Amino acid sequence: MKPIRYGMVGGGRGAFIGGIHRTAAAIAGNWRLAAGAFSSTAEKSRASGAEIGVDPARTYGSWQEMLSREAELPQDIRIEAVAIVTPNHMHAAPAIAAMEAGFDVIVDKPLADNLADARAIVDAAARTGRRIAVTHTYTGYPLVKQARRLIRSGEYGPVRRVMVKYTQDWLSRASDLENNKQAEWRVDPARSGEAGAFGDIGTHAANLVEFITGERIAAICAELTMLPGRRIDDDGAALFRLSGGGRGTLTASQVCVGDINDLAISVWCEEAGLHWRQEEPNTMRIGYRDKPTEIWHAGANRAYLASDILAIQRTPGGHPEGYLEAFANIYAAFGRTLRGMPQEGDEPGFATMDDALAGMRFVRASLDSSRQGAVWVDLASVE
Amino acid sequence: MKPIRYGMVGGGRGAFIGGIHRTAAAIAGNWRLAAGAFSSTAEKSRASGAEIGVDPARTYGSWQEMLSREAELPQDIRIEAVAIVTPNHMHAAPAIAAMEAGFDVIVDKPLADNLADARAIVDAAARTGRRIAVTHTYTGYPLVKQARRLIRSGEYGPVRRVMVKYTQDWLSRASDLENNKQAEWRVDPARSGEAGAFGDIGTHAANLVEFITGERIAAICAELTMLPGRRIDDDGAALFRLSGGGRGTLTASQVCVGDINDLAISVWCEEAGLHWRQEEPNTMRIGYRDKPTEIWHAGANRAYLASDILAIQRTPGGHPEGYLEAFANIYAAFGRTLRGMPQEGDEPGFATMDDALAGMRFVRASLDSSRQGAVWVDLASVE
Amino acid sequence: MKPIRYGMVGGGRGAFIGGIHRTAAAIAGNWRLAAGAFSSTAEKSRASGAEIGVDPARTYGSWQEMLSREAELPQDIRIEAVAIVTPNHMHAAPAIAAMEAGFDVIVDKPLADNLADARAIVDAAARTGRRIAVTHTYTGYPLVKQARRLIRSGEYGPVRRVMVKYTQDWLSRASDLENNKQAEWRVDPARSGEAGAFGDIGTHAANLVEFITGERIAAICAELTMLPGRRIDDDGAALFRLSGGGRGTLTASQVCVGDINDLAISVWCEEAGLHWRQEEPNTMRIGYRDKPTEIWHAGANRAYLASDILAIQRTPGGHPEGYLEAFANIYAAFGRTLRGMPQEGDEPGFATMDDALAGMRFVRASLDSSRQGAVWVDLASVE
Amino acid sequence: MKPIRYGMVGGGRGAFIGGIHRTAAAIAGNWRLAAGAFSSTAEKSRASGAEIGVDPARTYGSWQEMLSREAELPQDIRIEAVAIVTPNHMHAAPAIAAMEAGFDVIVDKPLADNLADARAIVDAAARTGRRIAVTHTYTGYPLVKQARRLIRSGEYGPVRRVMVKYTQDWLSRASDLENNKQAEWRVDPARSGEAGAFGDIGTHAANLVEFITGERIAAICAELTMLPGRRIDDDGAALFRLSGGGRGTLTASQVCVGDINDLAISVWCEEAGLHWRQEEPNTMRIGYRDKPTEIWHAGANRAYLASDILAIQRTPGGHPEGYLEAFANIYAAFGRTLRGMPQEGDEPGFATMDDALAGMRFVRASLDSSRQGAVWVDLASVE
Repeated sequence: MKPIRYGMVGGGRGAFIGGIHRTAAAIAGNWRLAAGAFSSTAEKSRASGAEIGVDPARTYGSWQEMLSREAELPQDIRIEAVAIVTPNHMHAAPAIAAMEAGFDVIVDKPLADNLADARAIVDAAARTGRRIAVTHTYTGYPLVKQARRLIRSGEYGPVRRVMVKYTQDWLSRASDLENNKQAEWRVDPARSGEAGAFGDIGTHAANLVEFITGERIAAICAELTMLPGRRIDDDGAALFRLSGGGRGTLTASQVCVGDINDLAISVWCEEAGLHWRQEEPNTMRIGYRDKPTEIWHAGANRAYLASDILAIQRTPGGHPEGYLEAFANIYAAFGRTLRGMPQEGDEPGFATMDDALAGMRFVRASLDSSRQGAVWVDLASVE
Repeated sequence: MKPIRYGMVGGGRGAFIGGIHRTAAAIAGNWRLAAGAFSSTAEKSRASGAEIGVDPARTYGSWQEMLSREAELPQDIRIEAVAIVTPNHMHAAPAIAAMEAGFDVIVDKPLADNLADARAIVDAAARTGRRIAVTHTYTGYPLVKQARRLIRSGEYGPVRRVMVKYTQDWLSRASDLENNKQAEWRVDPARSGEAGAFGDIGTHAANLVEFITGERIAAICAELTMLPGRRIDDDGAALFRLSGGGRGTLTASQVCVGDINDLAISVWCEEAGLHWRQEEPNTMRIGYRDKPTEIWHAGANRAYLASDILAIQRTPGGHPEGYLEAFANIYAAFGRTLRGMPQEGDEPGFATMDDALAGMRFVRASLDSSRQGAVWVDLASVE
Repeated sequence: MKPIRYGMVGGGRGAFIGGIHRTAAAIAGNWRLAAGAFSSTAEKSRASGAEIGVDPARTYGSWQEMLSREAELPQDIRIEAVAIVTPNHMHAAPAIAAMEAGFDVIVDKPLADNLADARAIVDAAARTGRRIAVTHTYTGYPLVKQARRLIRSGEYGPVRRVMVKYTQDWLSRASDLENNKQAEWRVDPARSGEAGAFGDIGTHAANLVEFITGERIAAICAELTMLPGRRIDDDGAALFRLSGGGRGTLTASQVCVGDINDLAISVWCEEAGLHWRQEEPNTMRIGYRDKPTEIWHAGANRAYLASDILAIQRTPGGHPEGYLEAFANIYAAFGRTLRGMPQEGDEPGFATMDDALAGMRFVRASLDSSRQGAVWVDLASVE
Repeated sequence: MKPIRYGMVGGGRGAFIGGIHRTAAAIAGNWRLAAGAFSSTAEKSRASGAEIGVDPARTYGSWQEMLSREAELPQDIRIEAVAIVTPNHMHAAPAIAAMEAGFDVIVDKPLADNLADARAIVDAAARTGRRIAVTHTYTGYPLVKQARRLIRSGEYGPVRRVMVKYTQDWLSRASDLENNKQAEWRVDPARSGEAGAFGDIGTHAANLVEFITGERIAAICAELTMLPGRRIDDDGAALFRLSGGGRGTLTASQVCVGDINDLAISVWCEEAGLHWRQEEPNTMRIGYRDKPTEIWHAGANRAYLASDILAIQRTPGGHPEGYLEAFANIYAAFGRTLRGMPQEGDEPGFATMDDALAGMRFVRASLDSSRQGAVWVDLASVE
């Protein structure tokens, strides 16, 4: 297929996630970076664009400029989609404007830093008819997709219990907020939203639960904490109830010392228990009552995986694919969708507006629960 | 030292835990089985005693008979202690009677099936001045003791977060209650107590948390569930708060398919995170913020372990010790205590009445919390 | 069954393996230590006997004294078997004398420190009709037995390749020979035999290969090395050919820093590859070409294990058994054999004279090969 | 830096390694695919080029055409380097011609299918002054580089023993040679060279040994085998001696059932043992004699790694990088070299002609050794 020409908002020098998006798009192979408004000043944006190798004529000083100037270019030259990799509080404005200008949008998670903004984006998508994807990276891993497939097939019976954790340690010291560009905005309510760890990584954990089980988190009882002197949560845990009746626990923390990026999930059904851990993403463990535990391996030639899951892998078994390839799978799927190509699996390959809103409600409900002393909050009741 | 002569109450044919106690005592080396009332009928008791190799003259038809007849034997022949391995609801009567008859007592956990009985045992111990130990097996593992030592030394700073799980699958099917002697009494409120999984294995998890952190669980918010048709919990999870201010989650389930006996704990302190898993008990993982993760190994010659922890191990590193040796460590320590030998570490080597009552309150509070819809319950308030 | 009364030769204060044998026998449950000649002097022997709790009247100053005095005791009191746990060069004399005096024998591996002595023992066994077992500990592990069962069933096809290693680090420094009773005799050719690591642990590795595959090592090409200043090998590796045509590699070293007691084996057959590692003995990994890898678990209730293998385990799955229990399985099986009880599996449960002689030839051939510059040596040709 | 414009030889439809090279170059970011002669016929080449997205005008019907036509293009447009991804017997001709036409070359390993061709390439490089790199993928992994750094620093002392294995199972059945384009040429002596598994993956294992230890394999004693009916080895093992005096074993097999792509290496030095396994490349285990084992983690923010090794990683710890990123590291380093940028580490970042010739000698010596019945062959003597 012909690559999707895209422009990037954010992702200049010193930013982490912008480079990840660009590499993911390069691995996907069906995207081509054609323009960018990489920074908050025109000068910085141009410097970043030059480093990245974007045509200086299409390196803009603001996303507003990018949208208006690109719209004037001939149809077969101008960008077709916009990738938004700015801090959370700066997602809504460019996303809405881009869709109104006729561009499709791919936006880093979470969709926005508050529910109202998120709903505005969803409304804009509905109004303009543009397509929009959110990059919940971890659902891009082949074995995560296979876990979902197995559970949703029903062969293991209903989900009984889920245990999910996402723990890191990069904010474990009081001093971590100084001199760290990542930390700075992520723990600033004005830029990241009022949730900290639960917004940043708790949403990944919640999304993984919903993706794999095919259910929604219906109610939650959460207790969020933070180191002395901080304004938003850096640690917390919750009990939750799934829409299908199963129960679960969720822990999200950025102060769990020694844990690097430890997203791990266990899902126990009536006839099997599935276990996957992001730091070793190429194996999945499945335990049974009456037979040996199984280790499933990722790989483009592991014939026991679903055929469409085999098809998205680039290497045969034992040649580990990682985080960037999982991310690339999301770009690849959204690219195929934009080109009207059929999706083989049982899900679009990227997080939809429904998923994103569910994530926003999860954060809102967790905060509400915690502020009231860790009481149960029904996600359907969240405004 | 001269072995402790003991008599056993329970542990006849078909019982699981009695054989474990006897083997543990044999490995410990400082105990000798001298008498027993192994079953509920004299005939069964004698058959069991013959199999086990106990003198038929000292194989009794009831524990009452054992206590009275042994008390009549010369002091250097009669039993010195009683091991109680009956179902939970039958702990209190023989324990109290044994202490009143002048015998020390070692009793399988939990101390009793309800708080009132437990308190009666504690009172009897105080009144008679006899010594009594509860066998919380998992605290007998050398690396569990080392974890406690490291955390209590303060070198890692205060405990921030704990995650503990104890999951099994032997009750995962509705049919598991039929024809299973183990299951039968454990899920019968009249014999096991009103708690199921939380009483049977949740207490082990809670005890492990308290042992390793040196703190108590101060408050809990628990949701217990059970398969349709059952009368007591077979699954549940809880948020909890430690007396020192740390937070935690606890999951205990006997319906988590594929999990065999999966007790695992993570304790994150300010400067390190410690991880131990019972099914691979000879290693402990410790993660740090700025240096490589460490794997600590058990073994009588791993010089980085505390000297008294080295001393209780029977084999050098790499020769795995397991569940029976952990159990033996408890017998060995209680035996040394009974002989008045000094205890080198910072804990007695067996669970005390304080530990046992804490466990009973944990169960009571969990049940209370769950019945009220998973609200927070303060353990200090539990009657 | 009625326990076997046994006397021990060696195993006094400061010895490692004697205590292991005694604990193993205690766990087995069908042995009772009734007498001993624990040390080279009467005084030391008595001191050790007192510590161990053996009747002083039956604690002897020499094995000669033990054999003659015990033979004079009434048949239902005197020992029935002798356990020999002295250094390798002191196995033959007491073993032969014991059998000639009418006692059965269990001897720590290797059978002797040289082939001539080993053959003399074998001859004595044949002449006297006594039973004799060698304790190749690692074949006592349930999953090792299960691996053998699976391979010998033929369902996985012929063995193609074997990789076995047994690596330790306790002799990794030149200074390790000083002040270490273990090291002292094990590296002294006069007491341990002319082989070092290959005799001490290489034989365990070779025995494991032969036990699991049901084949013999037919030819070997070995290169043995040692640290400067040493007289016998502390490290080496070999290529080998199995009697059934498969190929293999074997590494045995006591200078591999960081490896504690790392015995690990992989056996690849036509349709599966089996992997087991002694330091985590309760799981076995089996890989297949077209389906997920399997993890088999040990445990008395893992119904997929062979029934006689289930029967020798003391605890249900997830309650780890270790080195002492594996050792106990050997005592238990030999004890049953001595009582004439039927053996259910496809092997006696302990190493036989054939196995022991194969081990002796393995060591002899390895030394011969290495001395000639690592050439191929046929084990059938070894004198 | 300005990307290197390159043309590819081979890598059309159905080829595996060509796509890997292209994706690796895209991840590296400093390469741009500008031309290609992807297949053996002009038609197929054009079809592949169209799929890949290469300018049809620069998609050629043969590498000869590509070299001559590109050489005529303006200097700032024409390709600067050629990537050769054809079967082994087709490396030499295009490599030599490309260098003679003034292009630098990056070639998939092994350099050639025989020593004579390899030497001709080396001579051409010397004669033309062009740069040439071989892609020994596994040395591109950050932790492999860190292992080398640690060992070469001398802090762990000299290398004593190495154990390396590279085992797969994709040729485990006789039928695997039918209908498999990969298998077809790899097991055809005319196209792959006279070595099978030892040439295809044994060379990776040998290269890894030499890279990490900084030494050469000096002598080898190898036994290669193959399934009935095959013409070249599919399995084998060897003892080897390192130039620094250490000893090692190497196993390479494509018939080890259940092993997917299991390259694993252990290197024991005087003071530490290092262990790395390709299928879980983001951790490295280091064992010590007197302190806990360490797990080192990959990641751009693991400050204990060398600064230049941090710099080549794209993601922070816990975001796994895999095979494609390792491959990309080789492209990235060679690209920087071509642009005259300084290399910070102690090695160029790609395999040199010396490395490649060492690999060729390893294969030749292994074959010679095996054919003579597994005798020792000195690599210096190999012609």
